Amino acid sequence: MSEAAFIAGDWGTSRLRLYLCDAAGNVLARGEGEGASVPDCAARFAAAVAAWDKAHGILPAVLSGMVGSTIGWREVPYLKCPAKPSAIAAAALRFEAGDRGIAILPGLTCRSKTGAPDVMRGEETQILGALRLHHNLAKGRHLFCLPGTHAKWVSVADGAVTQFQTALSGELFELLRRHSVLARDSADVDPQNPAFALGLDFVRQNRKADLLYLLFSARSRVVAGEMAKSDAASYLSGLILGKDIATALALFEFDGPVQLICTPVLAALYGKALGAYDGKSAAIDGDRAALAGLVHAHAEIFS
Amino acid sequence: MSEAAFIAGDWGTSRLRLYLCDAAGNVLARGEGEGASVPDCAARFAAAVAAWDKAHGILPAVLSGMVGSTIGWREVPYLKCPAKPSAIAAAALRFEAGDRGIAILPGLTCRSKTGAPDVMRGEETQILGALRLHHNLAKGRHLFCLPGTHAKWVSVADGAVTQFQTALSGELFELLRRHSVLARDSADVDPQNPAFALGLDFVRQNRKADLLYLLFSARSRVVAGEMAKSDAASYLSGLILGKDIATALALFEFDGPVQLICTPVLAALYGKALGAYDGKSAAIDGDRAALAGLVHAHAEIFS
Repeated sequence: MSEAAFIAGDWGTSRLRLYLCDAAGNVLARGEGEGASVPDCAARFAAAVAAWDKAHGILPAVLSGMVGSTIGWREVPYLKCPAKPSAIAAAALRFEAGDRGIAILPGLTCRSKTGAPDVMRGEETQILGALRLHHNLAKGRHLFCLPGTHAKWVSVADGAVTQFQTALSGELFELLRRHSVLARDSADVDPQNPAFALGLDFVRQNRKADLLYLLFSARSRVVAGEMAKSDAASYLSGLILGKDIATALALFEFDGPVQLICTPVLAALYGKALGAYDGKSAAIDGDRAALAGLVHAHAEIFS
Repeated sequence: MSEAAFIAGDWGTSRLRLYLCDAAGNVLARGEGEGASVPDCAARFAAAVAAWDKAHGILPAVLSGMVGSTIGWREVPYLKCPAKPSAIAAAALRFEAGDRGIAILPGLTCRSKTGAPDVMRGEETQILGALRLHHNLAKGRHLFCLPGTHAKWVSVADGAVTQFQTALSGELFELLRRHSVLARDSADVDPQNPAFALGLDFVRQNRKADLLYLLFSARSRVVAGEMAKSDAASYLSGLILGKDIATALALFEFDGPVQLICTPVLAALYGKALGAYDGKSAAIDGDRAALAGLVHAHAEIFS
């Protein structure tokens, strides 16, 4: 077994994923911890890696995500787009915590297509990793989609992040699913459920109507006896993903394959939705991309 | 003082408003009670009017709203649009509760402009009342807006409701205000706050971008230092009302004054938002309209 060389940490708002890596970036062990929104990141990080310290000595750590925000460990200023992967590593905030060298990667900011500022923290590391895993993506223009609470659509040209746009898709679905009458007593979302396709079709037929005008149909179709109550969540997911995708394809004017960086479950949902809009897609595992980005950043920063 | 003749009840999901009326529809006393979503409407209605029964004898009652839904007292089938006010009264469900004659008014259903079914319960009675209060609205084509949890945009031609459309504006704002990071630690919505106007302007400049793509700017403008945290709720309200109004004006292709039936607070918000989109508006008090509709229905049903 090769020797442990550093710790990589993908530290978002609600979750910390830890990897004990050798010098080449191979994973020797995995760990988990609480999200960066819980107070005292320093003490929680020390506790989460204490067993590794004992077995391998104090190793340096590279961290990405909300750990670098005002609610995290130390604030790392956003890097402005266009941003190359090398610039992300170079802009890392480095400090010592006890005897440990820490590097926290910066998020990115840009002026989005709508004219408003936009920000990301963590997704830039996943994109950086995806470019390392798939060298063909480092040349030419590509559109990435990172679905989630705040989905990010990211335009990459010749390996640099040029512009991106946040869609509230995941959060909107969760809020409506949990608190609204729209999908009460519904079964879970299933991309094979015809109601998911119906939601996608309905959005496609109503390009001029904002989602605000389409959402109530999740309820009214049930009241009118056109849809089973149990199908409402799949339909609602179809509505939100459909509008997310239709807006992205129009705004970014892109017709190549969309690179989906996420969990397999979200890749299946977004892949099917993109297909319904005549879009193509390729899936890149989100955890794997984050790890590859952290490994790359470690090599740039610590060697 | 004139003699009590009947009870009018505006009974929505979360609130019951009661009026003791004389034969001409003048209000002699007011009462309140729980919404129609709490079980056992029969017992709660009896308790709410017990003092009036003692003073005036058992009087008939006319009720509107969610009391006529599957979660209410008795289900009254929706009436199909186009629907004239006289048809609403004629389709009331009449029954006896103890010695009391009860009439519950039906809601309306239509195929909305998006192609989906749509439904309302309670708003039809407010429109009926508005047409009685303002006789000029009973001729020609008019567009009504009833803001609220599920805002209704209603097209009325020669006194008949022809078609309508539900927008999730109120519910979406409340969910995001309460549960999302978007407007955390913000002050209350103020239509005089420049952030409200900024939200309206931003939507106007981004007609092609769905609200899904505009909402995150409530957070990113704060993160980027362009907006104070305390202004986020006013800005968010501007975004949602702006999109609501822009979509309605485009879908209904209407340029006359929009008749706002609601509270004075909502009339101020929607009036200002309509003004920012070069729209005109007139305000009709929502409680007054509901009462006028119930009084009219009583006269049609019980005399």
